[in-house]
Amino acid sequence: MNMPVLGYATQSAEAKLAPYHFERREPRADDVVIEILYCGVCHSDLHQARNDWANSIYPMVPGHEIIGRVVSVRKSVSRFKAGDHVGVGCMVDSCQHCQPCQQGLEQYCVEFPTVTYNGIDRRDQLPTYGGYSEKIVVSEKFVLKVPAGLDSAGAAPLLCAGITTWSPLRHWKVGKGSKVAVVGLGGLGHMALKLAKALGAEVTLFTRSPGKEQDARHLGADRIVLSTDAGQMASVTSHFDLIIDTVPSVHDINPYVPTLGINGTLVMVGYLGPLDPMLNSVPLIMGRKSVAGSLIGGIAETQEMLDFCGKHGITSDIEVIKIKDINAAYERMLKSDVKYRFVIDMASLKAD
Amino acid sequence: MNMPVLGYATQSAEAKLAPYHFERREPRADDVVIEILYCGVCHSDLHQARNDWANSIYPMVPGHEIIGRVVSVRKSVSRFKAGDHVGVGCMVDSCQHCQPCQQGLEQYCVEFPTVTYNGIDRRDQLPTYGGYSEKIVVSEKFVLKVPAGLDSAGAAPLLCAGITTWSPLRHWKVGKGSKVAVVGLGGLGHMALKLAKALGAEVTLFTRSPGKEQDARHLGADRIVLSTDAGQMASVTSHFDLIIDTVPSVHDINPYVPTLGINGTLVMVGYLGPLDPMLNSVPLIMGRKSVAGSLIGGIAETQEMLDFCGKHGITSDIEVIKIKDINAAYERMLKSDVKYRFVIDMASLKAD
Repeated sequence: MNMPVLGYATQSAEAKLAPYHFERREPRADDVVIEILYCGVCHSDLHQARNDWANSIYPMVPGHEIIGRVVSVRKSVSRFKAGDHVGVGCMVDSCQHCQPCQQGLEQYCVEFPTVTYNGIDRRDQLPTYGGYSEKIVVSEKFVLKVPAGLDSAGAAPLLCAGITTWSPLRHWKVGKGSKVAVVGLGGLGHMALKLAKALGAEVTLFTRSPGKEQDARHLGADRIVLSTDAGQMASVTSHFDLIIDTVPSVHDINPYVPTLGINGTLVMVGYLGPLDPMLNSVPLIMGRKSVAGSLIGGIAETQEMLDFCGKHGITSDIEVIKIKDINAAYERMLKSDVKYRFVIDMASLKAD
Repeated sequence: MNMPVLGYATQSAEAKLAPYHFERREPRADDVVIEILYCGVCHSDLHQARNDWANSIYPMVPGHEIIGRVVSVRKSVSRFKAGDHVGVGCMVDSCQHCQPCQQGLEQYCVEFPTVTYNGIDRRDQLPTYGGYSEKIVVSEKFVLKVPAGLDSAGAAPLLCAGITTWSPLRHWKVGKGSKVAVVGLGGLGHMALKLAKALGAEVTLFTRSPGKEQDARHLGADRIVLSTDAGQMASVTSHFDLIIDTVPSVHDINPYVPTLGINGTLVMVGYLGPLDPMLNSVPLIMGRKSVAGSLIGGIAETQEMLDFCGKHGITSDIEVIKIKDINAAYERMLKSDVKYRFVIDMASLKAD
């Protein structure tokens, strides 16, 4: 029997988010039923709600930074039991048999992973609905264990902002002595600073806005470079092993390439679209440098990141909001007016 | 005492190459004096002669694919003696103390390597003149040993076209089972096919011109993909570990990115300038793919490549010309009318 659930949905690109009654599926044999405690508000929620990527399905219940408590599990579930603290990120299923899936890279599933919302469930072909809701039903394989002691609200953004920056840090083997720079200080950027620092790297923040120095240092930056200041940019020529570019909108990446050392990589995790202005090949060729992209991270890697955060006491810096304030939060996000992630306290849904 | 030398030079961007008398330096303690037997004609010779990169110094004696015979060595030279068969590539010196130089990556010397022509010698501040000439004087460290049995004329292009494609093949660890594609079938492209094949890779040629199939297969391609044919392009979706893009002029690289597998890299070795049309970040992000650049190769790596070619009997497919035909050869190069490299027989200079 399907499960009635209350959430917040938008009915079109122009509509505001509002209370919405819908149904979750009758749990399948491998399903975990989760009561959602907190859900982070990702910049992509805003893009999807407003159909910025021209692939939105309405009604849409956004949210893919989910922290909750297991309510019940079905018979073939072995890793979870009622009462466990768990997380759900951007994916709730994948084909499980392609090469990337076999390698734990479900985010690059050849058949495309089933995304947590604005997707179509690959087993029943019904739309998926995200974390701005009371409960969610998720296949055990896509449920993460949340380490004891990690603040539940602050842990929510780890499921997207955390893993999106963790995955390139690990793939490009950042560790003690690595020189890492982060472009942009938002939800992703502030996590990149914290995680790179905890991994032992020398960490620099590139920013266009003066006045972020104190915050950035508090988050783990050893150095702040104003990208609008030619002298400061010149001071880091050929310096970095890895630059994580978290800026979610179109911007010129050319000024950052010369700050990469030989064999360095600039990895884009925020902006999807044409590189405007055009990327110049000359500095790439003159130092065997790369421009790459990276998408969230695999499930095993997400668990690794959560365990690392548990060990190092790392959570996101957040502002907890009530769900009725979600539309105002979207407007503030557009102005980068949040330090550094909104997280919805889902108890506010019941109290509404 | 300086050494009078006959060569071919151009006096301006508009002039043709013509006989030119100049002087080589009095050999220094670490110098090797080389009689030039053959010099390859690189596409960049044409760019430099015509000031396409706006950094040309005139008079200019081009040529950086040099094969010759040692005439004499100075007192501190230990690795060469008169009569040895040797090669000289794109560099004749570098700072020798920066980190890239220490790592054998002289091509990425922080102080920039001294290039074989159109450069300024870092010790005497005089212009460097290249291989379209009778003799050259080069510091021992930048002289390569040519393995016995390798055809001298066919070996000349190894010094630039060979190493430029070898270096990325090695850096990105191509070996048995690797899937490599090459874009463009010119001087660099045909060497990339031969070297990738000899390294054990499965090799594909991307080309816009039908009719290259037989030649490409002869050079080592297992598969030819017409990049103008959507069906053929779709047949290699997510397939390659490494794509070496040798095209020397502006072109759209976006169609090749989806043919990279997860973690794949497209490395540009031919075109210097803005990526027009704009590179789209989406396919990079959706598969952790990279666009990189690579410049020639280091001296130790060049020796490794020559030794590999000696062992596998690999040389360039060439058309030997007399030096008086160099201007006509440039015109034919512009029309890609060469299979696959012109090489000047320097004996033709004396006979002129």
